[in-house]
Amino acid sequence: MSQNDLITPVILSGGSGTRLWPVSTDERPKQFLNLTGPLSMFQLTLERCQEADLFELPIIVGGTKHADLAEEQMDEIGASVQAHILEPCARNTAPAIALAALACKSPQDLLLVMPSDHIIKNVSAFQKAVRQSVSLAKARWLVTFGIEPNGAETGYGYIQQGEPVIGSSNSFAAQRFVEKPNQSNAEKMLAEGGYHWNAGIFLFRADTYLKALSEHAPAMLEAAENAMEKADRDQTQIKPHEASFASAPSDSIDYAIMEKAEKVAITPVDPGWSDVGSWDSLLEISQSDAQSNVTFGDVVAVESKGNLIHSDGLEITTFGLENMIIVASGNQVMVLPKGQSQNVRKIVTAHRNES
Amino acid sequence: MSQNDLITPVILSGGSGTRLWPVSTDERPKQFLNLTGPLSMFQLTLERCQEADLFELPIIVGGTKHADLAEEQMDEIGASVQAHILEPCARNTAPAIALAALACKSPQDLLLVMPSDHIIKNVSAFQKAVRQSVSLAKARWLVTFGIEPNGAETGYGYIQQGEPVIGSSNSFAAQRFVEKPNQSNAEKMLAEGGYHWNAGIFLFRADTYLKALSEHAPAMLEAAENAMEKADRDQTQIKPHEASFASAPSDSIDYAIMEKAEKVAITPVDPGWSDVGSWDSLLEISQSDAQSNVTFGDVVAVESKGNLIHSDGLEITTFGLENMIIVASGNQVMVLPKGQSQNVRKIVTAHRNES
Repeated sequence: MSQNDLITPVILSGGSGTRLWPVSTDERPKQFLNLTGPLSMFQLTLERCQEADLFELPIIVGGTKHADLAEEQMDEIGASVQAHILEPCARNTAPAIALAALACKSPQDLLLVMPSDHIIKNVSAFQKAVRQSVSLAKARWLVTFGIEPNGAETGYGYIQQGEPVIGSSNSFAAQRFVEKPNQSNAEKMLAEGGYHWNAGIFLFRADTYLKALSEHAPAMLEAAENAMEKADRDQTQIKPHEASFASAPSDSIDYAIMEKAEKVAITPVDPGWSDVGSWDSLLEISQSDAQSNVTFGDVVAVESKGNLIHSDGLEITTFGLENMIIVASGNQVMVLPKGQSQNVRKIVTAHRNES
Repeated sequence: MSQNDLITPVILSGGSGTRLWPVSTDERPKQFLNLTGPLSMFQLTLERCQEADLFELPIIVGGTKHADLAEEQMDEIGASVQAHILEPCARNTAPAIALAALACKSPQDLLLVMPSDHIIKNVSAFQKAVRQSVSLAKARWLVTFGIEPNGAETGYGYIQQGEPVIGSSNSFAAQRFVEKPNQSNAEKMLAEGGYHWNAGIFLFRADTYLKALSEHAPAMLEAAENAMEKADRDQTQIKPHEASFASAPSDSIDYAIMEKAEKVAITPVDPGWSDVGSWDSLLEISQSDAQSNVTFGDVVAVESKGNLIHSDGLEITTFGLENMIIVASGNQVMVLPKGQSQNVRKIVTAHRNES
């Protein structure tokens, strides 16, 4: 790969969320948690794009609130960045990516946009798909990476592949973006084939994205341009102008651009991907012990099996317990049966109503 | 009831135990916990014998370690006592009761021996049975109170009733003491009838008990006599001489006396009794809410039913949970299915092995 084919990782770390409550909180969102090993998912994302023959230094786009936390975690693993853009307010992914596209070195830079709160077990499979897609991105395609579905998941959006893109080895025109389906539609898509999970990972030239913005979301582009023009800069840290950025419509890249633009391609890939969107999904991707339990922290599981028991301080003891999820963090303890963790949002809501 | 028929309650509060771990601990055993309402079971036991027409001031026999806790709890409810005997070491119930029998005002005093960690819901039924047994006790019978069994419990000892005692309205000779049975034997006894749970509640004259000791456990009597002779006394507080008391054989009143003595009677009674010997039994005797949950403390139970959730500090949240027991105390969280709480001792053991 020639020097000007180097890819600039754009790591989106502005997400907050409560799906892994009580461990994930507004103060410490999922991407900064080390749920699967010593490194946080943010750190794992940084490590995923260290190869100097493939990647430029990354651009991080995250929230002001978590700036210190992000920099601590970068320091821990000795990660350098090209820029750390601090969104003055949350405007969803499309404006966040616009900031990165305006911050990179050259309009022709190839941007690999990645959420920072996903797990990818097979990094080489992922990188291979990325390499295979470079020529398309250089030819001004907006490339998405579609995850091979291994079940009729209702928690993800789907992308339907169309005709193969001529001249590419492994990519297809993206025919249709499908929002999170119900169970029956998910099963239909799985049976029909040619549908992939939308992982929110994209590869394109900065100028391709900015041009698409100018066509499909000109107000968003203008807001991002103004915000970057009046940004405060301190070494690699960039603070876009708040009032300008606040005027950007809040929208995802899927809705704002991908569903509308021409020349959107999909490269299917099966990299052992998980969005770790629930405690159940963490249980699925984690190594269990001899009793089929996944435990973290101070846990004594007696005659218990098939449980996820996660504690970051309290001592949890179980007896004769099967297929339960127990999560303790700080002063909070959550207990629910396996398979129910998609309801954590309801729990958080109930909890807030009580307090 | 004439003045010299007044009964001296002897409240045994020396027990320690881990069956209600993690809430009950060596430092704060079950009798001092308020698991069923604002008062602890020790306080409820004191309140059960306040009627001045029936009871003298009680004698408390408890451990030195919990002396302050016991006195605090007595002060809280304004309870006066005749004596607070502090066992210098644990020697089981027979020597403890000997201390009380030696401390009371007169050898003819009627002693009503009661554990301090049981629940009695129908106090008037209990008091009625006590009143009915006074004449027997005065006639030098050792009277036990047998709880009408409502199931084939394996967690209690049983007492088989024999012939009715002539001249009593409601009492029988105690034919046989049965240790905690297995399930099949418990079912046989229940089917056969005439068996009652041994609640560890006794009524007798002090001198009857001391005479039985002299016959069946003379070394124990001698040790108790020496311990009381050389006791330190400070107002109502009595500290028996340690070395003397330590020489007493450690044995229960059942083994040491009741199984061997003549003239042992049983008065059946159904006073809504529970020894609160497990979290399951607490669940059984507690008032549940509209969702059939019994909760204590900071608990949010969403779409959950049939659970016992007890917290003395942590915030516990559940979703879709059924028939589970969750207990949180201090830094400890215990989770197990309903019906499994007899295994708490195994849990405590496993926990100690881990730490």
